[in-house]
Amino acid sequence: MHPFTSDPTASVAHLGEVALIDDISKWLGPVSPSAPHGIGDDCAVLEPIASGRQILTVDSVSYGQHFDATVSPEDAGAKLIKRNLSDIAAMGGVPGPAVLALLSSSDLSMSWLEKFFVGIRQTCERYGVSLVGGDISSLAVSNFSAVLTLTGQAQSPKLRSTAKSGDHIYVTGTLGGSILGKHYTFEPRLAEGQWLAQTMHCNAQMDLTDGLAKDLKALLPVDSHAALDLDAIPIAPAAQSLAEQTGRPALEHACCDGEDYELLFTINTQVNRHAFETQWAEQFPQTELHHIGYIRPSSAMGSLIDMQTNTALPWTHGFEHLKSE
Amino acid sequence: MHPFTSDPTASVAHLGEVALIDDISKWLGPVSPSAPHGIGDDCAVLEPIASGRQILTVDSVSYGQHFDATVSPEDAGAKLIKRNLSDIAAMGGVPGPAVLALLSSSDLSMSWLEKFFVGIRQTCERYGVSLVGGDISSLAVSNFSAVLTLTGQAQSPKLRSTAKSGDHIYVTGTLGGSILGKHYTFEPRLAEGQWLAQTMHCNAQMDLTDGLAKDLKALLPVDSHAALDLDAIPIAPAAQSLAEQTGRPALEHACCDGEDYELLFTINTQVNRHAFETQWAEQFPQTELHHIGYIRPSSAMGSLIDMQTNTALPWTHGFEHLKSE
Repeated sequence: MHPFTSDPTASVAHLGEVALIDDISKWLGPVSPSAPHGIGDDCAVLEPIASGRQILTVDSVSYGQHFDATVSPEDAGAKLIKRNLSDIAAMGGVPGPAVLALLSSSDLSMSWLEKFFVGIRQTCERYGVSLVGGDISSLAVSNFSAVLTLTGQAQSPKLRSTAKSGDHIYVTGTLGGSILGKHYTFEPRLAEGQWLAQTMHCNAQMDLTDGLAKDLKALLPVDSHAALDLDAIPIAPAAQSLAEQTGRPALEHACCDGEDYELLFTINTQVNRHAFETQWAEQFPQTELHHIGYIRPSSAMGSLIDMQTNTALPWTHGFEHLKSE
Repeated sequence: MHPFTSDPTASVAHLGEVALIDDISKWLGPVSPSAPHGIGDDCAVLEPIASGRQILTVDSVSYGQHFDATVSPEDAGAKLIKRNLSDIAAMGGVPGPAVLALLSSSDLSMSWLEKFFVGIRQTCERYGVSLVGGDISSLAVSNFSAVLTLTGQAQSPKLRSTAKSGDHIYVTGTLGGSILGKHYTFEPRLAEGQWLAQTMHCNAQMDLTDGLAKDLKALLPVDSHAALDLDAIPIAPAAQSLAEQTGRPALEHACCDGEDYELLFTINTQVNRHAFETQWAEQFPQTELHHIGYIRPSSAMGSLIDMQTNTALPWTHGFEHLKSE
C-alpha cells in the first residue's frame, strides 16, 4: 500500500495537526494514556520506575529506506516498535513508556497512517509499551519517517563492554537472509535478554542488527579476538535461499546480513557449557542457542579468526549505515 | 552553508557509520559521556533522578522545513536543543540527558555536520544537557532531519490542563515576527518556568510554539473562554516589521505567528496582581511580563474574545503543522 495520496481530502493535510493528534489518540486506544502521563502536554510525565535502572533507546523507520509500498503499513508500524524492543532486550530490560516523532509530508494518506498505527498499537499492547507523547512535523512532498524513543528498566543492565577474554560466544536463533521476511516477523528476544541479565555467568550481551561480523567486534575487549567455529554458525534457511539468488556463500549471508535481531552474548569460562545449555533449553525450548566460539587474546591476524584453519575470516564487514558501497 | 556535498570524499558516506559516531563523540566532548551512561551500547543507562518526577519531550529540525542553506549549521543545531528545552521550561523542569536520532542522506557534508554539532555542544554545555545515545539512519539524497528526545526532572510538573475559570492570563516577552530572527536567538525560559512551577499561585503553564491564538486554546478548561485585552498583547518589534512587509496588522502577527518560545501561564485570582508582578520583576528583571486577560466561563461567541468590544477575536488560528493553506 502506498503511503501517499494525490487526493487532498484523503491526506493528513485535510485534517491538520490538532485533529490528527486526536485521531492518533483514538487509534492507539489504551496504548495512549491521557496527559500528564500521555499525549497532550508540553512533556510527558513518567511514572517512577519500580526498581533497577532506567534505560533509553531510539530507532526509526523511513519510507524508501526501511520499507516501501510493497510492505503493509501494519508491518512498518510494528517494525518501528520491535526494533526498539530489541535494544531493550539486549540490555536485559523490561520496556516502558515511549515517545514518537512523526516527520511527514502533507500528502500522507490518512488510511495508510491509520493502518500504520494498527501495527504500532498491536505491538505496544503485546509488549506492554505505552505511547506517552510525541511530535509531528512537516517534510517536503512524499516523505515519511517515524522515530521512536523507548524507555525501559533493567535490574542490572547488561552491557556490551564487559566481555572477558576466554568467554564463550553464543547467538540465539539462526542468522542471515533477514531481508526475505524476518526483518518484519522477528520477535524481540525480551524474555531471553532478561533471563541472561540475571545470570551471573553472562558477561556481555547485545542484539544483532548490522550482521554478526560487524556487531561481534563491538563485543570484543581491547586486545582480544573472536575465535569462531564456522561450522557452528547457524545459517538461516533464508540465508540459503538468498545465497542461491546472489551466488555468494550462505555463510557469508549469515555473517554479514543485517537485521537478525537475535541476541549475541558471552558466558564466562567458569560455567559448565553443558549445564548452561541444558538450563537454556528448559527455559526457552523454542529459542535455538548456538555456541559459535570463544574470545581469545589479540592476534596479529585480526579480530575475527576461523578457529579450524587459524586464518582470518574472509568476511569481516556487516551493514554500514550511510557508507557508499 | 549548504548541508550537502557532491564531493564524495567530503561526505559522511566516506566515513561510514562507525567512524562517524567516533567523530560525533569527539565533537561533543564532555557533552558525550561514555557508555553505559552514554553512546556505545544498545541503550543508554540513565542516572536515577534526584527527586521529583521525570519528564520527556521530543522535537525535530529538518532541512528545507525548519532551516535552509541560509541558516548557519551552528544555529540549526542550537535550535534543535532549544526547542526541546522550551518544552522542559513549560513544565517547570530541569533538563537532563537526551538521545539524538539523525536521519540523513549519504551526501551530507562532514564539515556542515561538524558545525551543526558545534551548535549542539555549545547549547548542551550552556544548559547542562548530556547526549547519552542516539541512532543514525539513511535517507534518500539531500535529506537531513535530526530528532532529539530530551528528559528532564520537575519537582511538581506544571501542566496545561489545570487552569481555572477566573485565572489571570500572562505571557513573557513579546510576540510575533519570530521568523525574522528570534526563532534562532530565543532563550528557553527555564528559570522562569521553574520558578512558576514552585509558585502555588500558578495554575497552568505552556510554551508558545504555534502562536498565542492557537496555543491559548490548549490552556482553556472546558466551558471557558479567554477574555483578552488586545491592547496588552505585547507586539514584538519584529511583528511590526513583518506587518509592514505583509500588510497584515502587527497584532495579527503577535497572535498568530509561531515559534515565540515564550511562556503562557495562568495565575489564580486569590493573588494580588501587583504583588505577583513586583515579585516577578525582582526575580526576572530582564524578562518582560504581560497580563493579557482572564479565563471566563464559556461564551457562545467563541473561545477567544476581545474584552473591550465583547466580540470574538478575528484571528483564532495559529501555525498548523501539515495543514494545507
